[in-house]
Amino acid sequence: MSSSDGVFERLQQLLSDDMTAVNGVIRTRMASENAPRIPEVTAHLVEAGGKRLRPLLTLASARMCGYEGADHIKLAATVEFIHTATLLHDDVVDESAQRRGRPTANLLWDNKSSVLVGDYLFARSFQLMVETNNLRVLDILANASAVIAEGEVLQLSAAANITTTEDTYIRVVRGKTAALFAAACEVGGVIAGEAEDKIAALNSYGDALGIAFQIVDDLLDYGGVSATLGKNTGDDFREGKLTLPVILSIGKADRKERAFWERVIGKGQQEDGDLEQARVLMARHDVLNETRDRALGYAQQAQAALRPFPDSELKSILSDLVDFVVSRVQ
Amino acid sequence: MSSSDGVFERLQQLLSDDMTAVNGVIRTRMASENAPRIPEVTAHLVEAGGKRLRPLLTLASARMCGYEGADHIKLAATVEFIHTATLLHDDVVDESAQRRGRPTANLLWDNKSSVLVGDYLFARSFQLMVETNNLRVLDILANASAVIAEGEVLQLSAAANITTTEDTYIRVVRGKTAALFAAACEVGGVIAGEAEDKIAALNSYGDALGIAFQIVDDLLDYGGVSATLGKNTGDDFREGKLTLPVILSIGKADRKERAFWERVIGKGQQEDGDLEQARVLMARHDVLNETRDRALGYAQQAQAALRPFPDSELKSILSDLVDFVVSRVQ
Repeated sequence: MSSSDGVFERLQQLLSDDMTAVNGVIRTRMASENAPRIPEVTAHLVEAGGKRLRPLLTLASARMCGYEGADHIKLAATVEFIHTATLLHDDVVDESAQRRGRPTANLLWDNKSSVLVGDYLFARSFQLMVETNNLRVLDILANASAVIAEGEVLQLSAAANITTTEDTYIRVVRGKTAALFAAACEVGGVIAGEAEDKIAALNSYGDALGIAFQIVDDLLDYGGVSATLGKNTGDDFREGKLTLPVILSIGKADRKERAFWERVIGKGQQEDGDLEQARVLMARHDVLNETRDRALGYAQQAQAALRPFPDSELKSILSDLVDFVVSRVQ
Repeated sequence: MSSSDGVFERLQQLLSDDMTAVNGVIRTRMASENAPRIPEVTAHLVEAGGKRLRPLLTLASARMCGYEGADHIKLAATVEFIHTATLLHDDVVDESAQRRGRPTANLLWDNKSSVLVGDYLFARSFQLMVETNNLRVLDILANASAVIAEGEVLQLSAAANITTTEDTYIRVVRGKTAALFAAACEVGGVIAGEAEDKIAALNSYGDALGIAFQIVDDLLDYGGVSATLGKNTGDDFREGKLTLPVILSIGKADRKERAFWERVIGKGQQEDGDLEQARVLMARHDVLNETRDRALGYAQQAQAALRPFPDSELKSILSDLVDFVVSRVQ
């Protein structure tokens, strides 16, 4: 049994009082006197049993830096609201039918509700931040919000363009995933009054962890390195997403293979057996191992970012969390 | 010629240096190094020749209160960005094809771009506010953003429900329109360090002006009191919106008329001649004049809110602006 087994449970247990308080804030703030549909839509997503990874990062970072106040609760709820708002809008943009094994809000209600309730949650997150009276925290989270939206738009413009580079992919991932991980960690250090170099280290930890997390996610969508295509695989392929395994495959493609990628991703003309063929090409060029190696590289960066912090149970859990994220593909 | 003629031109002229600076901030901040589609979509809307009413309210309020600094520029741009973000999302929600006589962004690009670019502008507006370092301003605009989204969701839940009351209509309008007018005026007073009663008066002015503005808009969609159906009329009817003329008509409907409203608005089953029939029913119960009277009542409230301020050219223009808004239906 590796030390990363059960890392979520240990983190949730260690921070259980804080997380109970965060859940209380989330429940209170997603209410709306005027529009009862808002808590309906939000509850569907917030209570769907996500791991609450982002708020846990804020709580853990603040506590690891010795924070004793109460603002980390509001900031953790803020981060979860921003995340939930982006999920609602993502599902509209991706025209998704399922999220976390349940029908998406856009399917249960409609796209309109998903757009507007997302806006409401974003505004609510902003109100929560303002209550901390901390302009630096506001600055960090405002910047993160802009970078997230920018990453999503960049992903949209890059869609179906098979000349998309790994560099563009990393910029998209930094935006749509890593920016909120980084901000979630950074604000924990800021409210604790941590030294500047350590605040920067928390940002680097979140950034690298977020990129590793997203690369692993993209790899799992092709069944991971073990090449097992299960029921949770193939969504990215069917949506024609230019994730790292595809970009690396295109980079190594001969003329015939390139025509395949142009048809299935560039033009979105897919037939039965195309996903299996994509996996054959990925195996031929060993790109799944290469993708995993990229994730491991970012995981190492995340580990290195923790070095300046004195040893503590939380530091050890944050370190195990990195191992856990990449262990999913090993 | 009434004093309200050319009020926009006088306002724009008096504040032309400020507006030039605001337009500069808008152009700079809608740029995106990473995602060129963002400025394309935004420019389509921002440069479509809207009147910039909301930023003008911020500039005029700040200047009328004797403000000499530079933060009103950023706040005016903030307010325009929030407005533009809500327009982008509204067009997705309403499935609109035209705005200000041009095709909407969701038609030119796609719904996805409208959702994500709206998110980007909202985040950018938030960054701009943070730069003013004024937590009270942040609080006011965060609250306004939440109330806007709430109003939009409430409108969505009330759609097609012909038992919607005038009270619900006013709550929707307060949210989707008046909240930003009120906040735009209020923040001008706040940064000027104005007395509390006058800051509250600015909020009341914006709130009442915003409600009058929206009621007039809703009335014009049925051709105004003169009952002229032109090319810019009937959109709300076709979208089945429960605006004030419809709500008042339903309140006075006999059984047969009620069945008409239930069919065309409740069920959205419309045929040729239904819009004309709606106008006949509105004329029969004199609801267009009644709707105009409601607008005039809010206009009076807006005028009353200006009373505590010493006479000045800006006060006089803000007063004329109220007359201008309601003059459109007289």
